Amino acid sequence: MKICRYDNDRLGVVVGDKVHDVSAAQEEIRKSAPYDMMGDCVIAALPQWRSKLEDLAKKAPGKAISDVKFLPPVARYSKVMAAPTNYHAHIQEMAARQGTAAEAHRGILQAGIFLKANSSIVGENGNIKLRFPEKLNEHELELVMIIGKQGTKIPRDKALDYVAGYCMGIDMTVRGKEDRSFRKSIDGYSPVGPWIVTADEIPDPDNLELELKVNGVTKQKTNTNNLIYDCRRLIEFATEYYTIYPGDYYFTGTPQGVAPVNPGDWVTSACSQIGELKIQAVAQP
Amino acid sequence: MKICRYDNDRLGVVVGDKVHDVSAAQEEIRKSAPYDMMGDCVIAALPQWRSKLEDLAKKAPGKAISDVKFLPPVARYSKVMAAPTNYHAHIQEMAARQGTAAEAHRGILQAGIFLKANSSIVGENGNIKLRFPEKLNEHELELVMIIGKQGTKIPRDKALDYVAGYCMGIDMTVRGKEDRSFRKSIDGYSPVGPWIVTADEIPDPDNLELELKVNGVTKQKTNTNNLIYDCRRLIEFATEYYTIYPGDYYFTGTPQGVAPVNPGDWVTSACSQIGELKIQAVAQP
Repeated sequence: MKICRYDNDRLGVVVGDKVHDVSAAQEEIRKSAPYDMMGDCVIAALPQWRSKLEDLAKKAPGKAISDVKFLPPVARYSKVMAAPTNYHAHIQEMAARQGTAAEAHRGILQAGIFLKANSSIVGENGNIKLRFPEKLNEHELELVMIIGKQGTKIPRDKALDYVAGYCMGIDMTVRGKEDRSFRKSIDGYSPVGPWIVTADEIPDPDNLELELKVNGVTKQKTNTNNLIYDCRRLIEFATEYYTIYPGDYYFTGTPQGVAPVNPGDWVTSACSQIGELKIQAVAQP
Repeated sequence: MKICRYDNDRLGVVVGDKVHDVSAAQEEIRKSAPYDMMGDCVIAALPQWRSKLEDLAKKAPGKAISDVKFLPPVARYSKVMAAPTNYHAHIQEMAARQGTAAEAHRGILQAGIFLKANSSIVGENGNIKLRFPEKLNEHELELVMIIGKQGTKIPRDKALDYVAGYCMGIDMTVRGKEDRSFRKSIDGYSPVGPWIVTADEIPDPDNLELELKVNGVTKQKTNTNNLIYDCRRLIEFATEYYTIYPGDYYFTGTPQGVAPVNPGDWVTSACSQIGELKIQAVAQP
Protein backbone atom coordinates (compact mmCIF):
# COMPACT_ATOMS: atom_id res chain seq x y z
CA MET A 1 0.00 0.00 0.00
CA LYS A 2 1.08 3.55 -0.71
CA ILE A 3 0.15 6.06 1.98
CA CYS A 4 0.54 9.80 1.71
CA ARG A 5 -0.23 13.05 3.45
CA TYR A 6 -1.43 15.74 1.12
CA ASP A 7 -3.09 19.11 0.68
CA ASN A 8 -4.27 20.40 4.05
CA ASP A 9 -2.96 17.57 6.30
CA ARG A 10 -5.14 14.90 4.65
CA LEU A 11 -4.32 11.20 4.71
CA GLY A 12 -4.49 9.38 1.40
CA VAL A 13 -4.02 5.98 -0.15
CA VAL A 14 -2.39 6.08 -3.57
CA VAL A 15 -3.72 3.64 -6.17
CA GLY A 16 -2.44 4.02 -9.71
CA ASP A 17 -2.48 7.73 -10.49
CA LYS A 18 -5.14 8.60 -7.94
CA VAL A 19 -5.11 9.56 -4.27
CA HIS A 20 -8.06 8.33 -2.21
CA ASP A 21 -8.96 10.30 0.90
CA VAL A 22 -8.90 8.27 4.12
CA SER A 23 -8.65 11.24 6.48
CA ALA A 24 -11.56 9.97 8.54
CA ALA A 25 -9.32 7.18 9.79
CA GLN A 26 -6.53 9.62 10.55
CA GLU A 27 -8.89 11.75 12.62
CA GLU A 28 -10.09 8.71 14.53
CA ILE A 29 -6.58 7.46 15.27
CA ARG A 30 -5.31 10.86 16.37
CA LYS A 31 -8.21 11.35 18.79
CA SER A 32 -6.87 8.84 21.26
CA ALA A 33 -3.16 9.68 20.89
CA PRO A 34 -1.53 11.21 23.97
CA TYR A 35 -0.18 14.71 23.31
CA ASP A 36 3.27 13.78 24.57
CA MET A 37 3.50 10.56 22.58
CA MET A 38 6.93 10.11 21.04
CA GLY A 39 6.38 9.56 17.34
CA ASP A 40 3.38 9.41 15.03
CA CYS A 41 0.17 7.67 16.04
CA VAL A 42 -1.01 6.99 12.48
CA ILE A 43 2.21 5.22 11.57
CA ALA A 44 2.03 3.32 14.87
CA ALA A 45 -1.54 2.25 14.08
CA LEU A 46 -0.87 0.99 10.55
CA PRO A 47 -0.78 -2.72 11.41
CA GLN A 48 -4.24 -2.52 13.04
CA TRP A 49 -5.74 -0.09 10.54
CA ARG A 50 -4.30 -1.37 7.31
CA SER A 51 -7.33 -3.25 6.00
CA LYS A 52 -9.71 -0.53 7.16
CA LEU A 53 -7.66 2.04 5.25
CA GLU A 54 -7.88 -0.11 2.13
CA ASP A 55 -11.64 -0.42 2.51
CA LEU A 56 -12.03 3.33 3.01
CA ALA A 57 -9.86 4.00 -0.02
CA LYS A 58 -12.04 1.80 -2.21
CA LYS A 59 -15.09 3.86 -1.29
CA ALA A 60 -13.41 7.27 -1.63
CA PRO A 61 -13.37 9.01 -4.99
CA GLY A 62 -9.83 9.50 -6.27
CA LYS A 63 -8.07 12.77 -6.88
CA ALA A 64 -5.45 12.83 -9.64
CA ILE A 65 -1.89 12.69 -8.32
CA SER A 66 -1.07 15.67 -10.52
CA ASP A 67 -3.63 17.77 -8.61
CA VAL A 68 -2.31 16.85 -5.19
CA LYS A 69 0.26 18.65 -3.03
CA PHE A 70 2.26 15.97 -1.27
CA LEU A 71 3.27 16.83 2.30
CA PRO A 72 6.01 14.95 4.14
CA PRO A 73 4.47 11.49 4.64
CA VAL A 74 4.78 11.52 8.44
CA ALA A 75 3.07 14.25 10.47
CA ARG A 76 4.97 13.86 13.70
CA TYR A 77 8.34 12.17 13.92
CA SER A 78 10.67 12.11 16.87
CA LYS A 79 13.93 12.19 14.94
CA VAL A 80 15.64 12.08 11.56
CA MET A 81 18.59 9.72 11.49
CA ALA A 82 21.10 9.58 8.65
CA ALA A 83 24.09 7.50 7.66
CA PRO A 84 26.96 9.75 6.55
CA THR A 85 29.30 7.43 4.69
CA ASN A 86 27.56 4.26 3.66
CA TYR A 87 28.72 3.58 0.08
CA HIS A 88 32.40 2.94 -0.68
CA ALA A 89 32.25 4.82 -3.98
CA HIS A 90 31.00 7.97 -2.23
CA ILE A 91 33.71 7.77 0.42
CA GLN A 92 36.28 7.53 -2.39
CA GLU A 93 34.90 10.50 -4.30
CA MET A 94 34.91 12.65 -1.18
CA ALA A 95 38.43 11.59 -0.21
CA ALA A 96 39.63 12.55 -3.68
CA ARG A 97 38.46 16.14 -3.31
CA GLN A 98 41.14 18.66 -2.52
CA GLY A 99 39.29 21.37 -0.64
CA THR A 100 37.03 19.19 1.39
CA ALA A 101 39.40 16.31 1.96
CA ALA A 102 39.49 17.03 5.67
CA GLU A 103 35.74 16.81 5.89
CA ALA A 104 35.68 13.57 3.95
CA HIS A 105 38.30 12.02 6.16
CA ARG A 106 36.48 13.03 9.29
CA GLY A 107 33.47 11.34 7.75
CA ILE A 108 35.35 8.12 7.26
CA LEU A 109 36.95 8.13 10.67
CA GLN A 110 33.77 8.93 12.57
CA ALA A 111 31.80 5.76 12.53
CA GLY A 112 28.15 6.07 13.34
CA ILE A 113 25.12 7.93 12.23
CA PHE A 114 24.10 11.54 12.75
CA LEU A 115 20.90 13.51 13.18
CA LYS A 116 19.19 15.96 10.87
CA ALA A 117 16.87 18.55 12.40
CA ASN A 118 13.17 17.69 12.29
CA SER A 119 12.68 21.20 10.94
CA SER A 120 14.70 20.32 7.83
CA ILE A 121 12.06 17.88 6.56
CA VAL A 122 10.07 19.00 3.53
CA GLY A 123 7.63 17.27 1.21
CA GLU A 124 7.17 17.53 -2.52
CA ASN A 125 4.86 20.49 -1.84
CA GLY A 126 7.87 22.50 -0.68
CA ASN A 127 11.22 23.56 -2.02
CA ILE A 128 14.87 23.01 -1.34
CA LYS A 129 15.65 26.45 0.03
CA LEU A 130 19.25 27.32 -0.77
CA ARG A 131 19.98 29.50 2.21
CA PHE A 132 23.63 30.00 1.28
CA PRO A 133 23.56 30.04 -2.53
CA GLU A 134 27.16 31.22 -2.52
CA LYS A 135 28.35 28.02 -0.83
CA LEU A 136 28.60 24.52 -2.32
CA ASN A 137 25.17 22.89 -1.95
CA GLU A 138 24.97 19.27 -3.05
CA HIS A 139 22.33 16.61 -3.51
CA GLU A 140 22.65 13.20 -1.91
CA LEU A 141 20.30 10.53 -3.24
CA GLU A 142 19.03 8.28 -0.46
CA LEU A 143 16.58 5.54 0.31
CA VAL A 144 14.67 6.48 3.47
CA MET A 145 13.21 4.00 5.94
CA ILE A 146 10.19 4.99 8.02
CA ILE A 147 10.23 3.31 11.41
CA GLY A 148 6.99 1.54 12.29
CA LYS A 149 7.18 0.83 16.00
CA GLN A 150 9.11 1.61 19.11
CA GLY A 151 12.17 -0.46 19.77
CA THR A 152 15.69 -0.51 21.10
CA LYS A 153 18.61 -2.96 20.99
CA ILE A 154 17.01 -4.58 17.99
CA PRO A 155 18.94 -7.56 16.64
CA ARG A 156 19.70 -7.68 12.95
CA ASP A 157 17.34 -10.54 12.21
CA LYS A 158 14.37 -8.67 13.70
CA ALA A 159 15.27 -5.25 12.29
CA LEU A 160 12.92 -5.16 9.32
CA ASP A 161 9.97 -5.88 11.63
CA TYR A 162 10.46 -2.29 12.82
CA VAL A 163 10.11 -0.73 9.37
CA ALA A 164 6.70 0.64 8.39
CA GLY A 165 7.78 1.42 4.86
CA TYR A 166 10.06 3.33 2.56
CA CYS A 167 10.15 6.61 0.71
CA MET A 168 12.63 8.52 -1.39
CA GLY A 169 14.84 11.18 0.10
CA ILE A 170 17.48 13.74 -0.70
CA ASP A 171 20.03 14.49 2.00
CA MET A 172 20.85 18.03 0.96
CA THR A 173 24.21 19.20 2.17
CA VAL A 174 26.06 22.47 2.36
CA ARG A 175 29.78 21.71 2.48
CA GLY A 176 31.82 23.28 5.21
CA LYS A 177 33.54 22.70 8.50
CA GLU A 178 30.45 23.04 10.66
CA ASP A 179 29.09 20.05 12.54
CA ARG A 180 27.33 17.69 10.16
CA SER A 181 24.11 17.74 12.17
CA PHE A 182 24.07 21.54 11.74
CA ARG A 183 24.98 22.20 8.12
CA LYS A 184 22.75 19.36 6.85
CA SER A 185 19.81 20.67 8.86
CA ILE A 186 18.94 23.84 6.99
CA ASP A 187 15.17 24.27 6.50
CA GLY A 188 14.17 22.23 3.45
CA TYR A 189 17.40 20.21 3.37
CA SER A 190 15.64 16.88 3.95
CA PRO A 191 13.11 16.35 1.15
CA VAL A 192 11.13 13.13 1.62
CA GLY A 193 8.30 11.48 -0.23
CA PRO A 194 6.29 11.54 -2.26
CA TRP A 195 4.57 8.78 -0.22
CA ILE A 196 5.36 5.75 1.90
CA VAL A 197 5.37 2.34 0.27
CA THR A 198 4.60 -0.11 3.06
CA ALA A 199 7.29 -2.64 3.89
CA ASP A 200 5.30 -5.66 2.67
CA GLU A 201 5.68 -4.36 -0.90
CA ILE A 202 9.47 -4.11 -0.62
CA PRO A 203 10.57 -7.65 0.22
CA ASP A 204 14.27 -6.75 -0.08
CA PRO A 205 15.23 -3.13 0.68
CA ASP A 206 18.84 -4.06 0.06
CA ASN A 207 18.24 -4.64 -3.61
CA LEU A 208 16.65 -1.48 -4.96
CA GLU A 209 17.77 0.56 -7.95
CA LEU A 210 17.95 4.25 -7.00
CA GLU A 211 18.48 7.17 -9.34
CA LEU A 212 18.79 10.92 -8.89
CA LYS A 213 18.50 13.41 -11.72
CA VAL A 214 19.03 17.15 -11.88
CA ASN A 215 16.97 18.79 -14.61
CA GLY A 216 16.50 15.39 -16.23
CA VAL A 217 20.18 14.46 -16.26
CA THR A 218 21.23 11.41 -14.24
CA LYS A 219 23.73 12.35 -11.51
CA GLN A 220 23.58 9.45 -9.09
CA LYS A 221 22.60 5.86 -9.71
CA THR A 222 23.11 2.86 -7.50
CA ASN A 223 21.63 -0.29 -6.12
CA THR A 224 21.14 -0.52 -2.38
CA ASN A 225 23.04 -3.79 -2.50
CA ASN A 226 26.08 -1.49 -2.41
CA LEU A 227 25.26 -0.24 1.08
CA ILE A 228 28.10 -0.78 3.55
CA TYR A 229 25.63 -1.01 6.45
CA ASP A 230 22.51 -2.54 4.95
CA CYS A 231 19.04 -1.64 6.19
CA ARG A 232 19.01 -4.31 8.88
CA ARG A 233 22.43 -3.32 10.19
CA LEU A 234 21.51 0.39 10.20
CA ILE A 235 18.60 -0.32 12.54
CA GLU A 236 20.63 -2.66 14.69
CA PHE A 237 23.35 -0.01 14.92
CA ALA A 238 21.09 2.94 15.75
CA THR A 239 19.29 1.03 18.45
CA GLU A 240 22.53 0.06 20.14
CA TYR A 241 22.50 3.70 21.27
CA TYR A 242 18.88 4.79 21.44
CA THR A 243 15.21 3.98 21.02
CA ILE A 244 13.49 4.45 17.68
CA TYR A 245 9.84 5.46 17.42
CA PRO A 246 7.04 5.11 14.87
CA GLY A 247 7.47 7.75 12.19
CA ASP A 248 11.20 8.28 12.63
CA TYR A 249 12.95 8.85 9.32
CA TYR A 250 16.18 7.02 8.60
CA PHE A 251 18.27 8.21 5.63
CA THR A 252 20.40 5.27 4.57
CA GLY A 253 23.35 7.08 2.96
CA THR A 254 24.30 8.29 -0.49
CA PRO A 255 26.24 6.70 -3.35
CA GLN A 256 28.80 8.38 -5.61
CA GLY A 257 27.87 11.25 -7.92
CA VAL A 258 27.01 14.01 -5.46
CA ALA A 259 26.99 17.30 -7.32
CA PRO A 260 25.92 20.93 -6.95
CA VAL A 261 22.31 22.05 -6.77
CA ASN A 262 21.63 25.57 -7.98
CA PRO A 263 18.59 27.84 -7.75
CA GLY A 264 15.91 26.75 -10.21
CA ASP A 265 17.16 23.16 -10.49
CA TRP A 266 14.60 20.37 -10.45
CA VAL A 267 15.89 17.38 -8.51
CA THR A 268 14.28 13.94 -8.71
CA SER A 269 15.01 11.03 -6.41
CA ALA A 270 13.45 7.83 -7.70
CA CYS A 271 13.10 4.09 -7.37
CA SER A 272 10.75 2.07 -9.58
CA GLN A 273 9.34 0.13 -6.59
CA ILE A 274 8.71 3.31 -4.59
CA GLY A 275 8.09 6.26 -6.86
CA GLU A 276 9.63 9.58 -7.78
CA LEU A 277 10.15 12.55 -5.47
CA LYS A 278 10.47 15.73 -7.52
CA ILE A 279 11.36 19.02 -5.92
CA GLN A 280 12.74 22.36 -7.02
CA ALA A 281 15.60 24.28 -5.47
CA VAL A 282 15.15 27.99 -4.93
CA ALA A 283 17.49 30.68 -3.67
CA GLN A 284 16.31 31.80 -0.26
CA PRO A 285 19.20 33.57 1.42
CA MET B 1 6.83 32.17 36.96
CA LYS B 2 7.98 28.58 37.28
CA ILE B 3 6.13 26.11 35.07
CA CYS B 4 6.46 22.36 35.21
CA ARG B 5 5.06 19.15 33.84
CA TYR B 6 4.63 16.48 36.45
CA ASP B 7 3.10 13.15 37.45
CA ASN B 8 0.81 11.93 34.68
CA ASP B 9 1.40 14.70 32.09
CA ARG B 10 -0.03 17.45 34.34
CA LEU B 11 0.84 21.12 34.00
CA GLY B 12 1.84 22.93 37.17
CA VAL B 13 2.91 26.32 38.46
CA VAL B 14 5.57 26.14 41.15
CA VAL B 15 5.25 28.61 44.03
CA GLY B 16 7.64 28.15 46.93
CA ASP B 17 7.73 24.46 47.71
CA LYS B 18 4.34 23.67 46.18
CA VAL B 19 3.13 22.72 42.71
CA HIS B 20 -0.30 24.07 41.74
CA ASP B 21 -2.24 22.13 39.14
CA VAL B 22 -3.19 24.18 36.05
CA SER B 23 -3.81 21.21 33.76
CA ALA B 24 -7.21 22.58 32.79
CA ALA B 25 -5.42 25.31 30.84
CA GLN B 26 -3.13 22.78 29.21
CA GLU B 27 -6.10 20.74 28.07
CA GLU B 28 -7.78 23.82 26.64
CA ILE B 29 -4.67 24.97 24.77
CA ARG B 30 -3.94 21.53 23.33
CA LYS B 31 -7.49 21.15 22.01
CA SER B 32 -6.96 23.64 19.22
CA ALA B 33 -3.38 22.69 18.35
CA PRO B 34 -2.91 21.11 14.90
CA TYR B 35 -1.53 17.59 15.10
CA ASP B 36 1.32 18.41 12.76
CA MET B 37 2.31 21.61 14.54
CA MET B 38 6.08 21.94 14.87
CA GLY B 39 6.79 22.49 18.54
CA ASP B 40 4.73 22.72 21.70
CA CYS B 41 1.42 24.56 21.81
CA VAL B 42 1.50 25.24 25.55
CA ILE B 43 4.90 26.93 25.34
CA ALA B 44 3.70 28.85 22.28
CA ALA B 45 0.62 30.02 24.19
CA LEU B 46 2.47 31.23 27.29
CA PRO B 47 2.38 34.96 26.45
CA GLN B 48 -1.42 34.86 26.05
CA TRP B 49 -2.09 32.47 28.93
CA ARG B 50 0.40 33.69 31.49
CA SER B 51 -1.97 35.66 33.70
CA LYS B 52 -4.67 33.03 33.42
CA LEU B 53 -2.19 30.38 34.55
CA GLU B 54 -1.30 32.51 37.54
CA ASP B 55 -4.97 32.93 38.43
CA LEU B 56 -5.61 29.22 38.11
CA ALA B 57 -2.58 28.46 40.25
CA LYS B 58 -3.85 30.70 43.04
CA LYS B 59 -7.08 28.74 43.18
CA ALA B 60 -5.51 25.29 42.96
CA PRO B 61 -4.41 23.52 46.12
CA GLY B 62 -0.66 22.94 46.17
CA LYS B 63 1.12 19.61 46.18
CA ALA B 64 4.49 19.43 47.92
CA ILE B 65 7.42 19.46 45.50
CA SER B 66 8.83 16.45 47.32
CA ASP B 67 5.72 14.45 46.38
CA VAL B 68 5.86 15.35 42.70
CA LYS B 69 7.49 13.49 39.83
CA PHE B 70 8.88 16.11 37.49
CA LEU B 71 8.62 15.24 33.81
CA PRO B 72 10.65 17.03 31.13
CA PRO B 73 9.14 20.55 31.16
CA VAL B 74 8.17 20.52 27.47
CA ALA B 75 5.81 17.86 26.15
CA ARG B 76 6.53 18.21 22.46
CA TYR B 77 9.68 19.80 21.12
CA SER B 78 10.92 19.80 17.57
CA LYS B 79 14.62 19.59 18.32
CA VAL B 80 17.36 19.64 20.92
CA MET B 81 20.24 21.91 20.01
CA ALA B 82 23.55 21.95 21.85
CA ALA B 83 26.77 23.94 21.78
CA PRO B 84 29.77 21.59 21.90
CA THR B 85 32.68 23.84 22.87
CA ASN B 86 31.46 27.05 24.40
CA TYR B 87 33.76 27.67 27.39
CA HIS B 88 37.51 28.18 26.89
CA ALA B 89 38.42 26.31 30.06
CA HIS B 90 36.53 23.21 28.84
CA ILE B 91 38.22 23.35 25.44
CA GLN B 92 41.57 23.49 27.22
CA GLU B 93 40.82 20.56 29.52
CA MET B 94 39.74 18.43 26.57
CA ALA B 95 42.78 19.37 24.50
CA ALA B 96 45.02 18.36 27.38
CA ARG B 97 43.68 14.81 27.45
CA GLN B 98 45.84 12.18 25.86
CA GLY B 99 43.37 9.54 24.72
CA THR B 100 40.65 11.80 23.53
CA ALA B 101 42.80 14.60 22.15
CA ALA B 102 41.65 13.88 18.64
CA GLU B 103 38.04 14.25 19.65
CA ALA B 104 38.74 17.49 21.48
CA HIS B 105 40.51 18.95 18.51
CA ARG B 106 37.75 18.02 16.16
CA GLY B 107 35.42 19.77 18.58
CA ILE B 108 37.48 22.92 18.45
CA LEU B 109 37.88 22.89 14.70
CA GLN B 110 34.24 22.22 13.94
CA ALA B 111 32.50 25.46 14.66
CA GLY B 112 28.77 25.25 15.09
CA ILE B 113 26.21 23.50 17.14
CA PHE B 114 24.97 19.94 17.01
CA LEU B 115 21.74 18.06 17.67
CA LYS B 116 20.81 15.65 20.43
CA ALA B 117 18.03 13.16 19.77
CA ASN B 118 14.61 14.11 21.10
CA SER B 119 14.49 10.62 22.55
CA SER B 120 17.46 11.41 24.82
CA ILE B 121 15.46 13.94 26.87
CA VAL B 122 14.55 12.87 30.39
CA GLY B 123 13.08 14.67 33.39
CA GLU B 124 13.88 14.40 37.05
CA ASN B 125 11.39 11.50 37.19
CA GLY B 126 13.76 9.41 35.10
CA ASN B 127 17.34 8.24 35.25
CA ILE B 128 20.57 8.68 33.41
CA LYS B 129 20.74 5.24 31.88
CA LEU B 130 24.37 4.24 31.46
CA ARG B 131 24.01 2.06 28.42
CA PHE B 132 27.73 1.43 28.09
CA PRO B 133 28.93 1.36 31.70
CA GLU B 134 32.30 0.08 30.50
CA LYS B 135 32.94 3.25 28.49
CA LEU B 136 33.79 6.72 29.79
CA ASN B 137 30.49 8.47 30.57
CA GLU B 138 30.77 12.09 31.67
CA HIS B 139 28.51 14.84 32.97
CA GLU B 140 28.39 18.24 31.32
CA LEU B 141 26.71 20.98 33.35
CA GLU B 142 24.65 23.28 31.13
CA LEU B 143 22.18 26.11 31.20
CA VAL B 144 19.30 25.24 28.85
CA MET B 145 17.18 27.76 27.00
CA ILE B 146 13.62 26.90 26.03
CA ILE B 147 12.57 28.59 22.82
CA GLY B 148 9.28 30.47 23.06
CA LYS B 149 8.26 31.19 19.49
CA GLN B 150 9.03 30.35 15.91
CA GLY B 151 11.76 32.35 14.27
CA THR B 152 14.64 32.29 11.86
CA LYS B 153 17.51 34.64 10.96
CA ILE B 154 17.04 36.29 14.32
CA PRO B 155 19.41 39.21 14.94
CA ARG B 156 21.37 39.28 18.18
CA ASP B 157 19.46 42.21 19.64
CA LYS B 158 16.11 40.44 19.23
CA ALA B 159 17.33 37.00 20.28
CA LEU B 160 16.09 36.95 23.87
CA ASP B 161 12.56 37.78 22.64
CA TYR B 162 12.52 34.19 21.38
CA VAL B 163 13.28 32.61 24.75
CA ALA B 164 10.33 31.36 26.83
CA GLY B 165 12.50 30.52 29.79
CA TYR B 166 15.36 28.53 31.22
CA CYS B 167 15.95 25.24 32.95
CA MET B 168 18.93 23.23 34.12
CA GLY B 169 20.44 20.52 31.99
CA ILE B 170 23.10 17.86 31.89
CA ASP B 171 24.59 17.05 28.51
CA MET B 172 25.59 13.47 29.23
CA THR B 173 28.33 12.20 26.99
CA VAL B 174 29.89 8.90 26.21
CA ARG B 175 33.39 9.54 24.87
CA GLY B 176 34.37 7.92 21.64
CA LYS B 177 34.92 8.45 17.96
CA GLU B 178 31.28 8.23 16.94
CA ASP B 179 29.47 11.27 15.61
CA ARG B 180 28.68 13.68 18.42
CA SER B 181 24.97 13.73 17.58
CA PHE B 182 24.97 9.94 18.03
CA ARG B 183 27.01 9.23 21.13
CA LYS B 184 25.40 12.12 23.06
CA SER B 185 21.91 10.90 22.14
CA ILE B 186 21.61 7.77 24.21
CA ASP B 187 18.22 7.45 25.92
CA GLY B 188 18.34 9.51 29.12
CA TYR B 189 21.48 11.43 28.13
CA SER B 190 19.73 14.81 28.15
CA PRO B 191 18.28 15.40 31.62
CA VAL B 192 16.37 18.69 31.82
CA GLY B 193 14.36 20.43 34.49
CA PRO B 194 13.14 20.44 37.07
CA TRP B 195 10.92 23.25 35.69
CA ILE B 196 11.06 26.26 33.42
CA VAL B 197 11.72 29.65 34.94
CA THR B 198 10.15 32.15 32.55
CA ALA B 199 12.48 34.61 30.86
CA ASP B 200 11.12 37.67 32.66
CA GLU B 201 12.61 36.33 35.90
CA ILE B 202 16.07 35.96 34.38
CA PRO B 203 16.96 39.47 33.20
CA ASP B 204 20.52 38.46 32.26
CA PRO B 205 21.04 34.80 31.28
CA ASP B 206 24.70 35.62 30.64
CA ASN B 207 25.37 36.20 34.30
CA LEU B 208 24.21 33.08 36.11
CA GLU B 209 26.20 30.98 38.56
CA LEU B 210 25.95 27.30 37.65
CA GLU B 211 27.13 24.36 39.67
CA LEU B 212 27.15 20.61 39.19
CA LYS B 213 27.74 18.11 41.95
CA VAL B 214 28.16 14.36 41.95
CA ASN B 215 27.09 12.76 45.22
CA GLY B 216 27.29 16.17 46.88
CA VAL B 217 30.80 16.98 45.68
CA THR B 218 31.21 20.01 43.41
CA LYS B 219 32.62 19.00 40.03
CA GLN B 220 31.76 21.92 37.76
CA LYS B 221 31.18 25.54 38.67
CA THR B 222 31.02 28.54 36.39
CA ASN B 223 29.26 31.75 35.57
CA THR B 224 27.56 31.99 32.18
CA ASN B 225 29.50 35.21 31.65
CA ASN B 226 32.26 32.82 30.57
CA LEU B 227 30.28 31.59 27.57
CA ILE B 228 32.16 32.07 24.28
CA TYR B 229 28.89 32.39 22.38
CA ASP B 230 26.50 34.02 24.82
CA CYS B 231 22.77 33.23 24.80
CA ARG B 232 21.94 35.92 22.24
CA ARG B 233 24.70 34.81 19.89
CA LEU B 234 23.72 31.14 20.21
CA ILE B 235 20.22 31.96 18.97
CA GLU B 236 21.50 34.24 16.24
CA PHE B 237 23.91 31.51 15.15
CA ALA B 238 21.41 28.63 15.13
CA THR B 239 18.88 30.61 13.16
CA GLU B 240 21.40 31.49 10.49
CA TYR B 241 20.88 27.86 9.46
CA TYR B 242 17.38 26.90 10.52
CA THR B 243 14.09 27.80 12.12
CA ILE B 244 13.55 27.38 15.83
CA TYR B 245 10.16 26.48 17.29
CA PRO B 246 8.39 26.90 20.62
CA GLY B 247 9.58 24.25 23.03
CA ASP B 248 12.93 23.60 21.37
CA TYR B 249 15.66 22.94 23.92
CA TYR B 250 19.00 24.67 23.52
CA PHE B 251 21.92 23.39 25.63
CA THR B 252 24.38 26.26 25.90
CA GLY B 253 27.64 24.36 26.46
CA THR B 254 29.65 23.09 29.41
CA PRO B 255 32.48 24.60 31.46
CA GLN B 256 35.58 22.84 32.76
CA GLY B 257 35.36 20.00 35.25
CA VAL B 258 33.66 17.28 33.24
CA ALA B 259 34.16 13.98 35.01
CA PRO B 260 32.91 10.39 35.05
CA VAL B 261 29.41 9.37 36.07
CA ASN B 262 29.06 5.88 37.45
CA PRO B 263 26.07 3.68 38.26
CA GLY B 264 24.38 4.86 41.46
CA ASP B 265 25.75 8.42 41.28
CA TRP B 266 23.40 11.29 42.08
CA VAL B 267 24.08 14.24 39.81
CA THR B 268 22.74 17.73 40.52
CA SER B 269 22.77 20.63 38.09
CA ALA B 270 21.81 23.86 39.80
CA CYS B 271 21.50 27.62 39.59
CA SER B 272 20.06 29.70 42.45
CA GLN B 273 17.82 31.71 40.08
CA ILE B 274 16.46 28.56 38.41
CA GLY B 275 16.53 25.60 40.77
CA GLU B 276 18.16 22.25 41.14
CA LEU B 277 17.82 19.27 38.82
CA LYS B 278 18.69 16.06 40.67
CA ILE B 279 18.90 12.75 38.88
CA GLN B 280 20.47 9.36 39.48
CA ALA B 281 22.59 7.38 37.08
CA VAL B 282 21.87 3.68 36.72
CA ALA B 283 23.56 0.93 34.79
CA GLN B 284 21.28 -0.15 31.97
CA PRO B 285 23.40 -1.98 29.45
